[in-house]
Amino acid sequence: MIAQYPPMGWNSWDCWGAAVTEDTVRKNADYMAQYLKPFGWEYVVVDIQWAQPTAKTHEYIPFSELTMDEYGRLTPALNRFPSAADGRGFGPLAEYVHGLGLKFGIHIMRGMPRTAAHKGLPIEGSEYTCAAAADPNSICAWNPDMYGLRADEPAARAYYDSIFRLYAQWGVDFVKCDDIAREYPRCEREIEIISLAARNCGRDMVLSLSPGPAPLDRAEHLKTWANMWRITDDFWDEWRPLKGMFERAEKWCVHAGPGHWPDADMLPVGALRQCYDNTQEPGKGWTAFTQEEQRCMMTLWCMLRSPLMAGGDLPKNDEFTLALLTNGPVLEIEKTSWCAHPLYTTPEESAWIAPRRDGQGFYAAAFNLSDAPRAVTVTPEAPFSAARELWTGLETHGPLSALLQPHDAAVWRCE
Amino acid sequence: MIAQYPPMGWNSWDCWGAAVTEDTVRKNADYMAQYLKPFGWEYVVVDIQWAQPTAKTHEYIPFSELTMDEYGRLTPALNRFPSAADGRGFGPLAEYVHGLGLKFGIHIMRGMPRTAAHKGLPIEGSEYTCAAAADPNSICAWNPDMYGLRADEPAARAYYDSIFRLYAQWGVDFVKCDDIAREYPRCEREIEIISLAARNCGRDMVLSLSPGPAPLDRAEHLKTWANMWRITDDFWDEWRPLKGMFERAEKWCVHAGPGHWPDADMLPVGALRQCYDNTQEPGKGWTAFTQEEQRCMMTLWCMLRSPLMAGGDLPKNDEFTLALLTNGPVLEIEKTSWCAHPLYTTPEESAWIAPRRDGQGFYAAAFNLSDAPRAVTVTPEAPFSAARELWTGLETHGPLSALLQPHDAAVWRCE
Amino acid sequence: MIAQYPPMGWNSWDCWGAAVTEDTVRKNADYMAQYLKPFGWEYVVVDIQWAQPTAKTHEYIPFSELTMDEYGRLTPALNRFPSAADGRGFGPLAEYVHGLGLKFGIHIMRGMPRTAAHKGLPIEGSEYTCAAAADPNSICAWNPDMYGLRADEPAARAYYDSIFRLYAQWGVDFVKCDDIAREYPRCEREIEIISLAARNCGRDMVLSLSPGPAPLDRAEHLKTWANMWRITDDFWDEWRPLKGMFERAEKWCVHAGPGHWPDADMLPVGALRQCYDNTQEPGKGWTAFTQEEQRCMMTLWCMLRSPLMAGGDLPKNDEFTLALLTNGPVLEIEKTSWCAHPLYTTPEESAWIAPRRDGQGFYAAAFNLSDAPRAVTVTPEAPFSAARELWTGLETHGPLSALLQPHDAAVWRCE
Amino acid sequence: MIAQYPPMGWNSWDCWGAAVTEDTVRKNADYMAQYLKPFGWEYVVVDIQWAQPTAKTHEYIPFSELTMDEYGRLTPALNRFPSAADGRGFGPLAEYVHGLGLKFGIHIMRGMPRTAAHKGLPIEGSEYTCAAAADPNSICAWNPDMYGLRADEPAARAYYDSIFRLYAQWGVDFVKCDDIAREYPRCEREIEIISLAARNCGRDMVLSLSPGPAPLDRAEHLKTWANMWRITDDFWDEWRPLKGMFERAEKWCVHAGPGHWPDADMLPVGALRQCYDNTQEPGKGWTAFTQEEQRCMMTLWCMLRSPLMAGGDLPKNDEFTLALLTNGPVLEIEKTSWCAHPLYTTPEESAWIAPRRDGQGFYAAAFNLSDAPRAVTVTPEAPFSAARELWTGLETHGPLSALLQPHDAAVWRCE
Repeated sequence: MIAQYPPMGWNSWDCWGAAVTEDTVRKNADYMAQYLKPFGWEYVVVDIQWAQPTAKTHEYIPFSELTMDEYGRLTPALNRFPSAADGRGFGPLAEYVHGLGLKFGIHIMRGMPRTAAHKGLPIEGSEYTCAAAADPNSICAWNPDMYGLRADEPAARAYYDSIFRLYAQWGVDFVKCDDIAREYPRCEREIEIISLAARNCGRDMVLSLSPGPAPLDRAEHLKTWANMWRITDDFWDEWRPLKGMFERAEKWCVHAGPGHWPDADMLPVGALRQCYDNTQEPGKGWTAFTQEEQRCMMTLWCMLRSPLMAGGDLPKNDEFTLALLTNGPVLEIEKTSWCAHPLYTTPEESAWIAPRRDGQGFYAAAFNLSDAPRAVTVTPEAPFSAARELWTGLETHGPLSALLQPHDAAVWRCE
Repeated sequence: MIAQYPPMGWNSWDCWGAAVTEDTVRKNADYMAQYLKPFGWEYVVVDIQWAQPTAKTHEYIPFSELTMDEYGRLTPALNRFPSAADGRGFGPLAEYVHGLGLKFGIHIMRGMPRTAAHKGLPIEGSEYTCAAAADPNSICAWNPDMYGLRADEPAARAYYDSIFRLYAQWGVDFVKCDDIAREYPRCEREIEIISLAARNCGRDMVLSLSPGPAPLDRAEHLKTWANMWRITDDFWDEWRPLKGMFERAEKWCVHAGPGHWPDADMLPVGALRQCYDNTQEPGKGWTAFTQEEQRCMMTLWCMLRSPLMAGGDLPKNDEFTLALLTNGPVLEIEKTSWCAHPLYTTPEESAWIAPRRDGQGFYAAAFNLSDAPRAVTVTPEAPFSAARELWTGLETHGPLSALLQPHDAAVWRCE
Repeated sequence: MIAQYPPMGWNSWDCWGAAVTEDTVRKNADYMAQYLKPFGWEYVVVDIQWAQPTAKTHEYIPFSELTMDEYGRLTPALNRFPSAADGRGFGPLAEYVHGLGLKFGIHIMRGMPRTAAHKGLPIEGSEYTCAAAADPNSICAWNPDMYGLRADEPAARAYYDSIFRLYAQWGVDFVKCDDIAREYPRCEREIEIISLAARNCGRDMVLSLSPGPAPLDRAEHLKTWANMWRITDDFWDEWRPLKGMFERAEKWCVHAGPGHWPDADMLPVGALRQCYDNTQEPGKGWTAFTQEEQRCMMTLWCMLRSPLMAGGDLPKNDEFTLALLTNGPVLEIEKTSWCAHPLYTTPEESAWIAPRRDGQGFYAAAFNLSDAPRAVTVTPEAPFSAARELWTGLETHGPLSALLQPHDAAVWRCE
Repeated sequence: MIAQYPPMGWNSWDCWGAAVTEDTVRKNADYMAQYLKPFGWEYVVVDIQWAQPTAKTHEYIPFSELTMDEYGRLTPALNRFPSAADGRGFGPLAEYVHGLGLKFGIHIMRGMPRTAAHKGLPIEGSEYTCAAAADPNSICAWNPDMYGLRADEPAARAYYDSIFRLYAQWGVDFVKCDDIAREYPRCEREIEIISLAARNCGRDMVLSLSPGPAPLDRAEHLKTWANMWRITDDFWDEWRPLKGMFERAEKWCVHAGPGHWPDADMLPVGALRQCYDNTQEPGKGWTAFTQEEQRCMMTLWCMLRSPLMAGGDLPKNDEFTLALLTNGPVLEIEKTSWCAHPLYTTPEESAWIAPRRDGQGFYAAAFNLSDAPRAVTVTPEAPFSAARELWTGLETHGPLSALLQPHDAAVWRCE
């Protein structure tokens, strides 16, 4: 099964925006292999604009010339991904990542490059043209590059099949498809033909849908056609959206399960925004989350069983960030629990529980959502005799109670 | 703790509407004591209009004279509840029910009788008048009897305190407060002062709020101030609302827990609508649910851990109905599980799982929501070695698969 | 035809609120007869709460005892209207007003007194009871006295017929029915049976509907069943609502015509709020409108052909107020124009035109809606050779241009 | 003043869709000069897709190659407009139309051709590129050709200025700008810079905005920046939209005046849909309106003072159609009336009045909106001694009453 457990990995967006390069990817892959792999991290994902030769920041440039093959399939910009020369695309980079024992992922936008449609290029492996597949009225609200496809046209399926064939040749293990998860109902059918293209391409690929919020009332469609899907718009290092994630997690937790995971988005920890002009400003190049907030986030993501995608430039991790990402007992929640429930969420605090599937007790988490220190006590309905708090390692035999700093969290393994 | 587990009992509405009498209540209590008590059923609840001498059906009569004491507190209509004579109210009937080892409950409307306000009666135990507590603009959309109270006035608290004092004297164990659960936000504060009156009256009382749908986004308020609250409008013996309950259960399941239970409403099984003119019409006096639908309902209610309130006239139960209400292993789900989750719900089928709190396995339920026979298979994430289907008693060691008739359900205890 | 031209008169609400008395009415009628009658003013209207003995301000007292006859028909409170003694109701007061050459009007709420329904009183001239006519769910959002009627019940028609019979006996010429004009669609049928009762009562009565805003998309229903209807909520002496009236007038102007007049509400000029506690505060007992704003209001009301109801305590009028209400040429617009149109309305200014029905030219109005002095020029499409400005009397042969103070208006008679 | 009176002319859309040719335009111009000009008809307007060489029906072809100059300005497709050869654009055709004593108009879409932006063409007379002016996110919902412009960019003004300069060189007198009138608020600023380009191009041009419905609450903006704007979506020969136009006319009539005219859209009379496949089907190539409905439409359009644009292929006019378009007294309403008002509009009938600006009486119109013959009487508030019905020529001295066939109209000149 693809995505038996919530996928874990790294994604280039939070640190390198639209300007990610091969060199950066290799360095992050190296770091992951050395420091994170033992804890379950495995996907190395190249995010948006890898086909754009002139992208230098996190912004998009309208009417720019994208690199593509003669069939209108985007290929890596050679000035940014030199190993793609000679038509090898992401093949060499995927091979490198695989050589480290990791898996390789890429970002795509739904649809095809606008210019491929205007030029009337042929679709590989078919008798159709790009113009027959593209929908001139289906554009992305925030990126100028693509036309969505007319999902009911055979030409549209032919185009998606052709690009996933190419990704399979490259050795891609993970595709993050963008401009689609919150585009219900108009993109519902397009999700299906993308998913079919991924399943039929001859290689196992995780299909991840962005950006959110995906609509809760389409949960079953998402569970059927995707392996993970975003439940929020882009998530960054700010407290308010982190606090708001509790409400989203409450609604989505019942939809997490093998093969289909609600995605609370990347973890904006460590070195961020490395491609921004303002990186020079103090603090702008590093996460604005406090250490407490980072524990809070990790705890919630793990209780929800959200996929975990580190967003920072990994080689720049400090000791805290590395420790945060390598707390084995906390990460283990993702693989051993099920049926996570919030007990309650108020403006001041929240408590969650998650039974273990093996019947060996359960997890209980306490969150201080207020802006003052606060004692939070979790009272699970189930009995237990001992509990270990997983961030501090402290054991207790009494109530699950923690005096938490603002925005901090505690999580116990209870037996 | 009040309502440690979801309350179970009988309610007079589905069978006797606005025309319930003391005789009926006693007979149902007798039956419960004899047949149902061993399986956990305990509350005997007198529903709406017990203070209305002329009510003869399920309908309300505008501007009718309600029985009340000199403080504007409703008292049982003597022609219908003879034991209430001499100012003893529901005391004798409660005593009778208690004598059977059961608990006694009553229905109230929020507010006070309109005429109590117009007459300017005094409020018992206070210096206020009813006119000072009543809000002439706060009326019920479907019942003509009452004015809601101005919850911020001390007089309003005095009135609610005065009626709960009376109920405590009578020996009431359960109060179903009507015209309030879906009246957010305007009745939010009124819920609070009713709840405070119940807590402070000197007797343990379950507080149940009706009718639904209560608003999901006020779940924490409901959990704080009530023991159970309706998640739908009145539920009757029709398939469409039963099918629709799956969607509601999916949203509310995370809010079930000790002391606070989302309520899927009475179980319309057995002899219903006994007070209707149309009882003579074939079938109108008996549940329209098929046996399959009744199993489906019981299974869902138990997995959700909804309160269970039988709605039929119990002494008229047939063998099937009695068996339905006394399947011990199914009813046990309510008391032993937690963290119930739907795995999925589609127009054709649904599957749910619920871990046991003691770590001894879990429950898995399969529902055929389609109109044709259908094989439904539940694939839990957790391993198990043996499973027993609780409606048939059949054991299995293979997959959790059942060939289900339309609208039928199966539920397994897996270990 | 009833209301061939827009009705003109005085109403007690703006000055005396719920506390109007017979003495006040007589004094205002005397003043009108002496000073205003020659200019077309004729209706003397007693507004809300004349049946409430304890009303002393502009506020309503819940659950108060209203004066009524044995048929549940409200009658004047004797302590406030002494001439109503011996069951003569408003007869003597109407007679007094008629003796001055004026007409007499009263305010009613739709429906019947709540207590008439609770007491089960009979309906005069019928076999029905009040309880059979009243709708316990139909209440007014802002006044606690009444129940609306179940308009499809014969008892409801019987009740309305009975009260209009009484008004006809009293000599009422004008009925302002409240809690109804903005209550579409639920009161649509109630409007019709009230209107039928007025038409069939044997005496000509203007039927005026309050409060607004009446819904624009029900204009034809209003034109069919009422003589005037409010186009705003209560209008007071504040600039913002006056400025906002331009937008309303633009939408409603096409619906003004003989027998049916959109009503921009009373003119809050002169001595207002005489019954308020704060009358002692400087300025609270007098209109807050500047003289410019009062001209602006009068000009717009006349161009729109709104009914004109003076709201101040007339005997306290100062020279300006009297002059404002007795500018013959301006008031003549109401009786001689038709087809008024705004030319434009911007945040800064507005211009209106209104042809004369006799073909003798047209009126043109200029409004300064900005907060600074401003030259406003009106450019009508029709030619003219001479024009007289009606507030100043100045004649011009050139462009219709005025240098206006903030919120002031000019209006020309062009030929 | 541009558009002192409501413009009158012919437009190619209803008959020739996207496939209009030079030959067709010339023939319609010839006809207009010979038969219609004496009655005030003057504009000959080439509607959409004149730059598309392959258009053959009324449909749009995505990703087709449009004819344009080196500055991204669309030019007539030479295979359809041969006189445009040698870079002369519409100059020769305009000259031909002018030679007939008529005026020449063209249709444009807001924005620029998508390919002009993708190719990065320069903007004539400026230092900007098309890519700097185009907004990749601003597309038309129903036509695939164009990108809207980023109205706050100087490049956008430069582009619009450049195209209107070209139109002025060609001799264009009328521009119908499409995809804009109902696109408030997002295109508000784009309307302004198009209007400025038209005003500053050195030639008088009527600016007409399509399609509707334009938003009523932006009436003043429309009056300021455009000469006419559509008040409905595309209007065709169906009774329901014609009946619906009465409600729209009622709301918009106050906004008609010199220089700014609410536009009820083309008159679909005579030979329509000549370019459709289904022209062969009986009746599809001719208006589906009955003669009564055509009189109804003409009467309403004239009373409203809507622009009049004949939509049929003029040379194919039959006798009735020609007579309809050349009833001088009816057409005169457009030029002599003002302040038109509906008296009322019900599902069964409507009545309108419009005073003459010269004080010589007024017009009164009666419409039968029901599906049965019906006597409709108009009762104007103004007196008159004689009246002539303008479709029949019959004179009357009594009431304005007509026995009308279903959907027919009568209109009187009253004095």
